[in-house]
Amino acid sequence: MEGNDDSDIIEHHVEEDMEKKEPRSHAASSSFLDSVAPSDRDAHSGTQSSHRLLAYSDALISIIATVMILPVAHTKMEDTEELRESVQLLLTTKIAVYLMTFLIVTVAWAAHIRLFQVIVRIDDCLALLNLACMMLITFLPYTFSLMATFPENVLGILLFCGCVMVIGVIQSLIVVYAFSRPFLLNQQIQISENRTFYKHHILKVIMRVPLMCFIASVFSFIFFQLSYALLAIVIFLPYISQFLKWCRDKIIGPVEESPDSVLFYTYLPNEPLSKDRVEAFSDGVYAIVATLLILDICEDNVPDPSVVQKQFGGSLTAALQVYGPEYLAYFGSFVTVGLLWFVHHSLFLHVTKATRFMGLLNTFSLAFVGGLPLAYQLTHEFPQNSHNELEAIQISCVIIFFASIFQLAIWVVALYSEQESLHPYVRYGGQEHVFMLAKLSLYPCVALGTFFLTCILSKFSAPIFHLMEITVPFAFLVLRLLVRVVLALLRLIFCPDRPVLRSIIEQEDEEVRGTLNALLS
Amino acid sequence: MEGNDDSDIIEHHVEEDMEKKEPRSHAASSSFLDSVAPSDRDAHSGTQSSHRLLAYSDALISIIATVMILPVAHTKMEDTEELRESVQLLLTTKIAVYLMTFLIVTVAWAAHIRLFQVIVRIDDCLALLNLACMMLITFLPYTFSLMATFPENVLGILLFCGCVMVIGVIQSLIVVYAFSRPFLLNQQIQISENRTFYKHHILKVIMRVPLMCFIASVFSFIFFQLSYALLAIVIFLPYISQFLKWCRDKIIGPVEESPDSVLFYTYLPNEPLSKDRVEAFSDGVYAIVATLLILDICEDNVPDPSVVQKQFGGSLTAALQVYGPEYLAYFGSFVTVGLLWFVHHSLFLHVTKATRFMGLLNTFSLAFVGGLPLAYQLTHEFPQNSHNELEAIQISCVIIFFASIFQLAIWVVALYSEQESLHPYVRYGGQEHVFMLAKLSLYPCVALGTFFLTCILSKFSAPIFHLMEITVPFAFLVLRLLVRVVLALLRLIFCPDRPVLRSIIEQEDEEVRGTLNALLS
Repeated sequence: MEGNDDSDIIEHHVEEDMEKKEPRSHAASSSFLDSVAPSDRDAHSGTQSSHRLLAYSDALISIIATVMILPVAHTKMEDTEELRESVQLLLTTKIAVYLMTFLIVTVAWAAHIRLFQVIVRIDDCLALLNLACMMLITFLPYTFSLMATFPENVLGILLFCGCVMVIGVIQSLIVVYAFSRPFLLNQQIQISENRTFYKHHILKVIMRVPLMCFIASVFSFIFFQLSYALLAIVIFLPYISQFLKWCRDKIIGPVEESPDSVLFYTYLPNEPLSKDRVEAFSDGVYAIVATLLILDICEDNVPDPSVVQKQFGGSLTAALQVYGPEYLAYFGSFVTVGLLWFVHHSLFLHVTKATRFMGLLNTFSLAFVGGLPLAYQLTHEFPQNSHNELEAIQISCVIIFFASIFQLAIWVVALYSEQESLHPYVRYGGQEHVFMLAKLSLYPCVALGTFFLTCILSKFSAPIFHLMEITVPFAFLVLRLLVRVVLALLRLIFCPDRPVLRSIIEQEDEEVRGTLNALLS
Repeated sequence: MEGNDDSDIIEHHVEEDMEKKEPRSHAASSSFLDSVAPSDRDAHSGTQSSHRLLAYSDALISIIATVMILPVAHTKMEDTEELRESVQLLLTTKIAVYLMTFLIVTVAWAAHIRLFQVIVRIDDCLALLNLACMMLITFLPYTFSLMATFPENVLGILLFCGCVMVIGVIQSLIVVYAFSRPFLLNQQIQISENRTFYKHHILKVIMRVPLMCFIASVFSFIFFQLSYALLAIVIFLPYISQFLKWCRDKIIGPVEESPDSVLFYTYLPNEPLSKDRVEAFSDGVYAIVATLLILDICEDNVPDPSVVQKQFGGSLTAALQVYGPEYLAYFGSFVTVGLLWFVHHSLFLHVTKATRFMGLLNTFSLAFVGGLPLAYQLTHEFPQNSHNELEAIQISCVIIFFASIFQLAIWVVALYSEQESLHPYVRYGGQEHVFMLAKLSLYPCVALGTFFLTCILSKFSAPIFHLMEITVPFAFLVLRLLVRVVLALLRLIFCPDRPVLRSIIEQEDEEVRGTLNALLS
């Protein structure tokens, strides 16, 4: 069963890819379409693989998801005021706006994924409709921040609802258009007999959101608190409907699903989520976040020649030393984000199927990653040994901890259904299992360790933090070796009469030495 | 020959993809490795497809390439001063910095592509080395802008050279490491007998750049003008070496290439460039540029509640009307960038093989695309019918023209070697040829038309420009129909005795009507 599954995925992928290279070759695979009206077959020639359209959409959405971190990052901290107060001020407004925007945009993104799991090929018309949809999605963060800044004003609600409604209408148009040209659809639905049923089911799910937004915008004139409640329901709709279903199942007993039903638009936590798109979206977020600080540095930290002449006696080195903390923050955050990406990359190499629930955990992880540059900037901004510095360092540790613990959670979820979602050699007892676990738990452990160390040795918090920044990349480099050594030690302690293990360590050691020699020569 | 080529590419791709899904399956394809030392085979288990690493690198590099447009975009224009002056001021400094940075980063990106066309699989160590390399590349724009702001200061040159040297050293490390584990290499080099020759050739090419930077940094202490000349040579090295080769061939006659030589690291304009990576990089740039204005809007254009209360009597609508031009600029630039992406997407669907020269033209096109949001912002910022507005509109037209004409140039270059680089059905006389040409020439024609119209009817320049913004998306939607009508008209004029054509139009017409009906029902 499981071997079958695997080869299916590969075959499907290979087919998709060949189509990407040769947009025409799909004609062979859809020979049943010969029975369709000739005008349909003719229009067929304009279809393309949706691969690149989705990659571009993912890039756009990942930028938009992280955009609201900019107002947070650009809030100037004054040395005189206490960090605690300013952070509390931020927490209540800008950070909340950032997190909510992130959630809203990822909900829109999840809907987009679901839509394009049904529609697997596109033509020019769909591409243009999708671009229009993207434009409205990129406008969502702005309408939401208007809503958050002016909670009692109707305009914010109206703009937000308007955007969501237009997005819903465009998506319905896309569905209707695609079902009128069945060769654009998923193979499974294309050959299904009750295609009309699917069409209506999908339209019903899509139109639910704009409908509720319409009601919310009507209520905004009468009793605007109610519209906020409605909008909250819209955003958490998948989870609410999921919860209701669970309750119903508990009370009445599980309802049998019709065997023909496809796992689309179900809101079940094990509904498949395109792994490629989760990767592309995550890559986008990691890339934006990693470069967030250098964007500011390039724009703001090139000193003015006249200022250098006046204030620093023409010494550029002295002028640049003022920006020292910014450079440090940049390097620290780039390295941390880069390594978190590296762990994410290793994780998704071993995951064969992503589900909605894993996507949700990934979203949480990414939301914390987005806050990292800000935390690092704070860390390097305050005078040494101040109370502010200690708190900034501890906040950084907490953010790193949560960003990495959610990655670990994805792994745990994948282990729960390891038959379906993991490669055989990383399952329990698999060859790579321990190594993967070590990779995933390195950052949570280090962050937790640093946090408690700074609590105890609060005087040395900055050196401890810097030491952590420097050692972690090297720890990743020699992790494979470390894991083997630890495993060998463990086995040596518990079953000391196995000399085979020593040879493994030596062999690995030799290999490393060989590589070092190759690098040095 | 050509059919052979095609299937080769597909096979290769398919194989790569299967490996992506199942990192282990490559073991079968490299059975000759069984003769290699067992420690090598053991380490084998840690290898992965490089696909996602490269996608992440592309995302990072595309952000960095466009970052220097931010200082240009954030230069505040004062209504009182003449646009001509301020634009000239910009042209001399910030725009030059932006264009040069774009060029420098794309040169680094091209080197990165070339490197990872040789190394097709990665392991953890290579992934981490690559991240280190990325961090230094992201720092390049800043060192360059320091160099541009303080041209007579040694520090800028030293920092820039230092970055380039470290990048060169890391890339050499990557090459040495990869050649010490041959299963990471390109199949072609992996099975080649003179692998050592390739290694030395590649190292020689890579080390040339850091070496010249080292000389430049030494000269910066003695005679800094010379170091600029040396750095210019470094950036234009590929084109210079290409030109020298061409001269030598003209004088001595062409040198016969050894039949075994692979088309890597040759600097020939027809050296293949990974099409996937050109697409990924372009997607990144288009996505950043499309969202550039909304980033600013989200950050700056949420009015302060107290200001709204004081200045606008609590009317949020009135407060937001002040930002009207910003919204218009955002929609205009998003639509234009989105449609240029759409044209690029259609173009690369039909291109089967990208070359260095096409990559260069693509770079030029993208550099102009980067300036679009700025131009649109200017267009909507000035009072109606002012001289400034007219100039801003004309500058926008010029930028659109150049961005789209370079796309057309890619198509023309692809047509020159159509046997190798185009799908059969878009070659001369191919089914889709005219349609593709129409798509590519729509924007240059419209931009040129708008430019001359605004010259003649300078009073109506703003309405003409707005009309252009609105009609172009619809023109793209009905382009297929338009092309058929024009073709039919042309044939009707030149050979009026062919009634078959009328039926084509009618058929197409019917199809469109059918779709409209489906959408309306």
